[in-house]
Amino acid sequence: VGLIGGSIGLAARRSEDVTVAGWDPDRQALELALERGALDSAAGSVAEALDGAEVCFVCAPVGDVAATARAALECGGDCVVSDVGSVKAAVLDALGDCDPERFVGGHPLAGAEASGVEHARAELFEGATWYLTPTERTSGMLYDRLYRTVAGLGARPTAIAAATHDRLMATVSHLPHVMANVLVGQAARELVEESQALPATGPSFRDATRVAGANPPLWRDIFVSNRDAIVQELDAYAGALDEVRRRLRAGDGAALERWIEDARADRQRLLEGELGGGRVSELRVPVPNRPGIVAQIALALGEAGINIVDMALYPAPDMRSGAIALWVAGEGSAERAAALVADLGYAATPVGGGEG
Amino acid sequence: VGLIGGSIGLAARRSEDVTVAGWDPDRQALELALERGALDSAAGSVAEALDGAEVCFVCAPVGDVAATARAALECGGDCVVSDVGSVKAAVLDALGDCDPERFVGGHPLAGAEASGVEHARAELFEGATWYLTPTERTSGMLYDRLYRTVAGLGARPTAIAAATHDRLMATVSHLPHVMANVLVGQAARELVEESQALPATGPSFRDATRVAGANPPLWRDIFVSNRDAIVQELDAYAGALDEVRRRLRAGDGAALERWIEDARADRQRLLEGELGGGRVSELRVPVPNRPGIVAQIALALGEAGINIVDMALYPAPDMRSGAIALWVAGEGSAERAAALVADLGYAATPVGGGEG
Repeated sequence: VGLIGGSIGLAARRSEDVTVAGWDPDRQALELALERGALDSAAGSVAEALDGAEVCFVCAPVGDVAATARAALECGGDCVVSDVGSVKAAVLDALGDCDPERFVGGHPLAGAEASGVEHARAELFEGATWYLTPTERTSGMLYDRLYRTVAGLGARPTAIAAATHDRLMATVSHLPHVMANVLVGQAARELVEESQALPATGPSFRDATRVAGANPPLWRDIFVSNRDAIVQELDAYAGALDEVRRRLRAGDGAALERWIEDARADRQRLLEGELGGGRVSELRVPVPNRPGIVAQIALALGEAGINIVDMALYPAPDMRSGAIALWVAGEGSAERAAALVADLGYAATPVGGGEG
Repeated sequence: VGLIGGSIGLAARRSEDVTVAGWDPDRQALELALERGALDSAAGSVAEALDGAEVCFVCAPVGDVAATARAALECGGDCVVSDVGSVKAAVLDALGDCDPERFVGGHPLAGAEASGVEHARAELFEGATWYLTPTERTSGMLYDRLYRTVAGLGARPTAIAAATHDRLMATVSHLPHVMANVLVGQAARELVEESQALPATGPSFRDATRVAGANPPLWRDIFVSNRDAIVQELDAYAGALDEVRRRLRAGDGAALERWIEDARADRQRLLEGELGGGRVSELRVPVPNRPGIVAQIALALGEAGINIVDMALYPAPDMRSGAIALWVAGEGSAERAAALVADLGYAATPVGGGEG
């Protein structure tokens, strides 16, 4: 009953005819969940929590999902058992022939920003994709029950094959984490060799390594659980890097330029799809880096109803100036944002992005 | 006379005994530079601009630096000629035996946020590292003149071997751009194959691809000019990826966890060095994603004198909630920031970072 389990409880209990029982190996978390109203009752065991249950969500860390799901399935009954882990095929493999009719993997795309039941909230899943990974052995009736339950939490249940899910996550989440960890290690080694401090260049290194070193035990489990898909992604990635290497060696400027242009089109397309708010535009605003500037700009845009979908601050080496990068979505909002920023006395430039 | 050239002019003209002449193939830019006070005079040719000059800065795009520097050197005189490009060895190679006493490469780490003389400002270089790449053939007297000129612009001149400079830039800037371009292409291909939309996961993909597609002609030139160093970095990077791949295949969780912990320590160390403001702490604040929230938080921190050194907004899929990631520097500022955020009714969590 952490962030996800607690939020499921809070969201489910909005319906009067739903009763939520919870169990957690951490007694304090369980009591806090009860206090916060995420549970009707705190159970002393998995079996007690599942007594008479129709749907069970296993919200354990990735490495513990299979064992906990197995414990839940072994309690019997006609309860559909699901989980919320970010890796899916490994759990199915580990469960093997353990009641395959009643287990359906799940993964809500929400809650990355914090952990713990103290941050749980009923609206966490509102509008979020919630992947479900039924197999050909899944009971149709139980899948339907799970689907409706997830929809009732406010999420958009989306069926996907476990292997496809894992490959997607490997591409958009696990591979970026590998890249960040590798890059930061490489830079650290080289800067020591050269006895150089990290030069305060543009934002690319900072962005590229922002998730480096993220939660080691959690990510160890994700990497191990999804290793097959990640290795496959790494192979494709290594192949693509090799192609870039070939073009570099050949000094093929035209091919390199086309490749960058393709990357620009790809990112635009991917992010527009993700954000769903229409065309996303980037603006850069060089500003003095004193406290309050961000507020001033954000406030002016906020008052005009422009919602900032992504934002980054890039302090200049002197820490007295820098730039704010803003991504705004929707027709005409870039122009309106630029005008508002100009009214404040700053110049906003639409960007192709990236330092030179 | 774009952003860099214009800013050099503005910074240099703060001294009463300095006269700045400029030339630009773009007549409009030249006139604007004159209007903005970046120049004392707009010259009709390189030779005219250099008449009687003591120091010349070639502020052309990377691909045009060598030819323009050669033109400047061929004007003769005892003027020291430098440039401001982000790749250094290729220029020295291209110049060969063309007056090696008088040419000293340079690269100010400033001005990534915008381009064009309209954004030029006298303070652009204040406190910024300005790499200079003298060789054993450089005239000591001319190097000294250039060094003092650069320091007079407010920058910190730092001598470095051209090859070392290029390898550093390859690591902290050029390689991250390659990584971003490759990842975004890979994701686009796979999502099309799987007929999937980009799932709105955590921030890692967005961060990892933020510079994808940056300014194609500029980056084509950087990649081509610095291809030897980038290929060398790519080889080291591919080797490190291969090592990760080996650990993944072996399912070696302990080694993977150590590797992530090392990455965390490396990034902390690198960024602390860069920012120079003491220990950097990350906080995540889950918030409703309505306009004005960023302002509210930034304002509260600003009023308390806490300067935010890095910031990212991560909207949740419903676009009605999300998280603000804040990086604050200095002893005790994370705790103070968390308390201020709590006063506003939001919960700030110190983070290890990264979605699960």
